Amino acid sequence: MTRIAVIGAGAVGGYYGARLAQAGHDVRFLLRRDLDAVRANGLRIFSPDGDFHLTDVTVAASPAELGEVDWVICSLKTTALGSAQELVGPSVGPNTRILALMNGLGVEEHFAEWFGAERVSGGMAFVCINRGEPGVIHHLDYGRISLGHALDDQSQNAELDALLRSANIDTVVAPNLRYARWEKLSWNIPFNGLSVAGGGIGTATIVGDAGLRATAERAMREVVAAGNADLAANGSAARLDEDEVVARMFALTETMGDYRTSMAIDYVLGNELEAEAILANPVRRALALGVAVPTMATLSALVAQADRVRRGLARVLTREDLTRPTTK
Amino acid sequence: MTRIAVIGAGAVGGYYGARLAQAGHDVRFLLRRDLDAVRANGLRIFSPDGDFHLTDVTVAASPAELGEVDWVICSLKTTALGSAQELVGPSVGPNTRILALMNGLGVEEHFAEWFGAERVSGGMAFVCINRGEPGVIHHLDYGRISLGHALDDQSQNAELDALLRSANIDTVVAPNLRYARWEKLSWNIPFNGLSVAGGGIGTATIVGDAGLRATAERAMREVVAAGNADLAANGSAARLDEDEVVARMFALTETMGDYRTSMAIDYVLGNELEAEAILANPVRRALALGVAVPTMATLSALVAQADRVRRGLARVLTREDLTRPTTK
Repeated sequence: MTRIAVIGAGAVGGYYGARLAQAGHDVRFLLRRDLDAVRANGLRIFSPDGDFHLTDVTVAASPAELGEVDWVICSLKTTALGSAQELVGPSVGPNTRILALMNGLGVEEHFAEWFGAERVSGGMAFVCINRGEPGVIHHLDYGRISLGHALDDQSQNAELDALLRSANIDTVVAPNLRYARWEKLSWNIPFNGLSVAGGGIGTATIVGDAGLRATAERAMREVVAAGNADLAANGSAARLDEDEVVARMFALTETMGDYRTSMAIDYVLGNELEAEAILANPVRRALALGVAVPTMATLSALVAQADRVRRGLARVLTREDLTRPTTK
Repeated sequence: MTRIAVIGAGAVGGYYGARLAQAGHDVRFLLRRDLDAVRANGLRIFSPDGDFHLTDVTVAASPAELGEVDWVICSLKTTALGSAQELVGPSVGPNTRILALMNGLGVEEHFAEWFGAERVSGGMAFVCINRGEPGVIHHLDYGRISLGHALDDQSQNAELDALLRSANIDTVVAPNLRYARWEKLSWNIPFNGLSVAGGGIGTATIVGDAGLRATAERAMREVVAAGNADLAANGSAARLDEDEVVARMFALTETMGDYRTSMAIDYVLGNELEAEAILANPVRRALALGVAVPTMATLSALVAQADRVRRGLARVLTREDLTRPTTK
């Protein structure tokens, strides 16, 4: 039995934490929105792999209550990276390891700085999952976690892999963490990006329109090119196969229904968007490597603009404006 | 005194027609929205080049009333190209010439087919202009018309140039019409495109944001590359100078204030957008020529998507959707 703290128990953290708890591990959830509901009624998972209901869930409202654990799974949104150190820190003892189960670029660097790279792994969950009512999680499809250790420590990869597999979680140890991050970005950049730049839309709208679909594919090919350049620049021989990635990601997306990306959900709810980690940081990395990423950069600029419009920070023209001449 | 019919007397047609009438030409305006107002109160132009008021304006509600003329200036929106033949036709006699004062690609081909290429010219107005109340036009800045004949007939270029200059209209005879169209597109594609894809915004918002500005510049460079390939493919030795175009267009845009592009105005008013002529046709032409135009293509797809969202034709996610799991 492994002691596990789940920090940031949204849909992803809640789902994987619940799987680990179901398998008998000592899982402790740091909760905010769902605290009272889970304390009262447990955690209910609807899943094509079998629904289940955890009635006795260890929950905490503050990180100090969690106690020291063997593994911290941090599934905060990247927009909350600024508070990750204080939320994760109290659970970390001399032998604690940390899995940053978060998307985007520029994640594990922070954990490595705070806690030492030797104990930090990253994980990318390719999973369709949405939160329902408090205490309810709808797992819709897929679920594989792609893993890598910050320093490529293969024994830690094996240990983490075994832990997740003990809970019947599908895993793959990536050639390295950088590879895993770019592979996941190859889906997130086109689909999160277009889901917001397109006005808050689901994946079926993107793959069903010729222009948006072509834009998604073009963005995906740019991500692979940037990722491969990043791998090469960092001495890795691993490469993403562009055509294979495109074929696989579109095949997966075709069967998702009108899936709502996490960024579209945040957009509709008025939450902060993970635009820095998922769009802006990869664009910066690509430009620093001299890789042309025009589609990615356009999506990044237009997602930021959509966010400003939504928050009332951009001047949008109105019918009333049109009755007046432009002022300088 | 030249007999001139202005077909599609929006801001652009109204302004240039009024200048020609002011110079003493026999100008007849085919009007719709502004018919009663202009018949009652004339046409009032506010302009940095001098305000003026035409009190006695020849207006018509139907093309048959216009009579045969020496020059037809067709300044319909490209979205009305389908009705241009029947609106222009009644004014065309054996010696009538036609100026298509319209943006985008795929314009004069239609007029040439209907009326014969030998009498067709194209003009691109680089002008900041907005309609005000019915019968009122606000000329804000610039005003040069760049000209070219469909078959490169230099005597017709000279004749049209002289006609426009007789009304103190600033003109330039372009190396050829194709060159003039692409040069104008180098502004229209980035700024019309981003003004709609960015949520209905003015030019100051675009040039004032680093991400949008970089996107505009990237799109502009793609337009120039596509235009130069199109010129080469059609046996023209003329070339747009990429850096010169970028420097000039941004310098012009910097001094426009928060100018509202025609596409942003159409977007805000719920009118049909000139997305085919200004975005989709140039993207198709570029792709047919093998020129990579990822930024242009992304803007084209996202403008079409913004248009669908505005017209209720795209499924946009709502807060209510988020309480239900994705359905397949």
